[in-house]
Amino acid sequence: MKIVIAPDSFKGSLSAVEASISIKKGIKRAFPAAETVLLPIGDGGEGTMETLVVATGGSKRSVSVTGPLGESVEAEYGILGNGETCVIEMASASGLAHITSDKLNPRLATTYGTGELIKQALDDGFQSFILAIGGSATNDGGAGMLQALGLKLLDEEGKEISFGGAELARINSIDISGFDKRIKGMKFLIASDVQNPLIGPDGASSVFGPQKGATIEDVKILDQCLTHWANEVEKVTGIHLHDLQGAGAAGGLGGAYQAFFPAEMRRGIDIVIEYTKLEQALVGADLVITGEGQVDYQTASGKTPMGVAQAAKGLGIPTIILAGSIGQGVETLYQFGVVSVNSIINKPMKLNEAMERADELVEHCSEQVARTFFNHQLQN
Amino acid sequence: MKIVIAPDSFKGSLSAVEASISIKKGIKRAFPAAETVLLPIGDGGEGTMETLVVATGGSKRSVSVTGPLGESVEAEYGILGNGETCVIEMASASGLAHITSDKLNPRLATTYGTGELIKQALDDGFQSFILAIGGSATNDGGAGMLQALGLKLLDEEGKEISFGGAELARINSIDISGFDKRIKGMKFLIASDVQNPLIGPDGASSVFGPQKGATIEDVKILDQCLTHWANEVEKVTGIHLHDLQGAGAAGGLGGAYQAFFPAEMRRGIDIVIEYTKLEQALVGADLVITGEGQVDYQTASGKTPMGVAQAAKGLGIPTIILAGSIGQGVETLYQFGVVSVNSIINKPMKLNEAMERADELVEHCSEQVARTFFNHQLQN
Repeated sequence: MKIVIAPDSFKGSLSAVEASISIKKGIKRAFPAAETVLLPIGDGGEGTMETLVVATGGSKRSVSVTGPLGESVEAEYGILGNGETCVIEMASASGLAHITSDKLNPRLATTYGTGELIKQALDDGFQSFILAIGGSATNDGGAGMLQALGLKLLDEEGKEISFGGAELARINSIDISGFDKRIKGMKFLIASDVQNPLIGPDGASSVFGPQKGATIEDVKILDQCLTHWANEVEKVTGIHLHDLQGAGAAGGLGGAYQAFFPAEMRRGIDIVIEYTKLEQALVGADLVITGEGQVDYQTASGKTPMGVAQAAKGLGIPTIILAGSIGQGVETLYQFGVVSVNSIINKPMKLNEAMERADELVEHCSEQVARTFFNHQLQN
Repeated sequence: MKIVIAPDSFKGSLSAVEASISIKKGIKRAFPAAETVLLPIGDGGEGTMETLVVATGGSKRSVSVTGPLGESVEAEYGILGNGETCVIEMASASGLAHITSDKLNPRLATTYGTGELIKQALDDGFQSFILAIGGSATNDGGAGMLQALGLKLLDEEGKEISFGGAELARINSIDISGFDKRIKGMKFLIASDVQNPLIGPDGASSVFGPQKGATIEDVKILDQCLTHWANEVEKVTGIHLHDLQGAGAAGGLGGAYQAFFPAEMRRGIDIVIEYTKLEQALVGADLVITGEGQVDYQTASGKTPMGVAQAAKGLGIPTIILAGSIGQGVETLYQFGVVSVNSIINKPMKLNEAMERADELVEHCSEQVARTFFNHQLQN
């Protein structure tokens, strides 16, 4: 009996690694002799760097960079087990986690630190990059990131503008002459599930601005600023970011990567599955157990459990999903090879109790699910 | 694929019948062609009469009797599908459900109505009886029940005592001459899981008195009254109820049945399993699904899921348990053929939400459990 354990995190309670350990414990309680392969997995959103580092046996490097509000923060980039590919997760430098909720301000927040992280990785000699997106506190179109790599964003007086989404309106010209020459020779893979365009009602400011602290008035201003930014970028690159798919990811950072980097954007989960070599791990498996804090109809749009199930289905292996909370529409997952969706909650309880006891609940649920699935083995 | 569905009630939300229907719906969502056999089942506590009537295709007869506090109440006795055996559930005449919680008073409450129910069934010509115990509001040693059947409980002045546990202390003699002569020629089966003796620290008053409204002082008095009652009963029957196993069931009604009836006391679940012909229904089944509101280490002591699992195990059929709430120690159930114990709760929620949505939650959980168990059928 071989079981591949490939959960995402249970947000707020268990990291993907912790979840995979709890699942393994539950399986071992049911079947001590079972072969288990732990492959904690992120969907290419927050936590992707950690996921890829752990899954490939890689490492991390700490770098002091400029935080989203200009303060100094400690960020990290990841190095995959192959020693060649590094993972830049924007949230590590420019994410919401660096700011207390009362300080959120997408008019001021910058991706400068993300650019510094990339620069450091380039200085360290890396040539292959995975750029992970998600959890951003910014709405600056990726301008800060580009500034850190030498792009000059000049105002009417020829002076560099400051940080933040609201500053973009002051750009009069972009000077690309100092932009890091190494970029164009490297390989970049953007991991993003966000399909939104840069501007407009489906754009970065309207859709993601509010969760970064933007008021209704802010959203309007920020959308105008990104429009101006897109116009200016088009002048120097010829790339029309305005309605480009994915340009609205991470406050427009997705667009900046696409305009100035030789980058390919792919669904996060597909990149993760490729680099974690999930398909190799699946060979010979009888079952895959995956999971996530919340599973519902949205799971089918590129979340970890769906990506894992699809990969497993391709090899004829069934997938069982564990979830903290099951919402509407999980039936849509069956077509992707999902056998069942099971909640870890084992009695009426509040969210905070569920979060505190998540390890134990995941373990218990995994034991029961494994026993149900492999019932014939129990009888022998 | 044949699945036997044999749940108990999910107390406070679903009757056993309702639970079985929800389970069936879930299975049918997973496998529309599955053969399902519905056998809702009580454990011989409250609801046993209903269970047996439904499971055997029987009927019920309504009888006006004396309620626990002397008022008139509508009670019912059940007639099994064989038309020969009737089920007297004490709670129907003398149960807690007849009294609002502020009126609970085991010093006054009587089992007289239970005796009237038996008398009516005798008048109706029945010769085989199942006496179900559980949910009693009384602590009168079954004295009221016996009075209704002609036993005379006389005080020092030779007058009949009144109703209730506290009156027992006034008994000076018992006159059995008028006791219904039909009783001794009939067949009585007492369905009870309560092993407690009549008196003492493990007796009816100490253990069950408080849930019937007894204060600490009441418990002391009621225990003394039952002691006096046991002494008087011994004088006329020779039976020493004081420490007799099961005599403490239903406020001592269990003892009265044992002293004055040709009755055999058996574990409720075993009687239910026998009369519902569970074992016949199980023939050829691939799986049994049972369940109950709360499942924990106590489930192993004669609750429905355990009884069902034991019966199924005897035929080599696996059992899956559904529960509203899973407590500690469910591992002890594995030895009885239980494959897994699964909570119907599918996200953090309060008890009242779980109860309101119980039908839908049971249905969803049943679907997932069936899919997990019969995964190989999904793949074909």
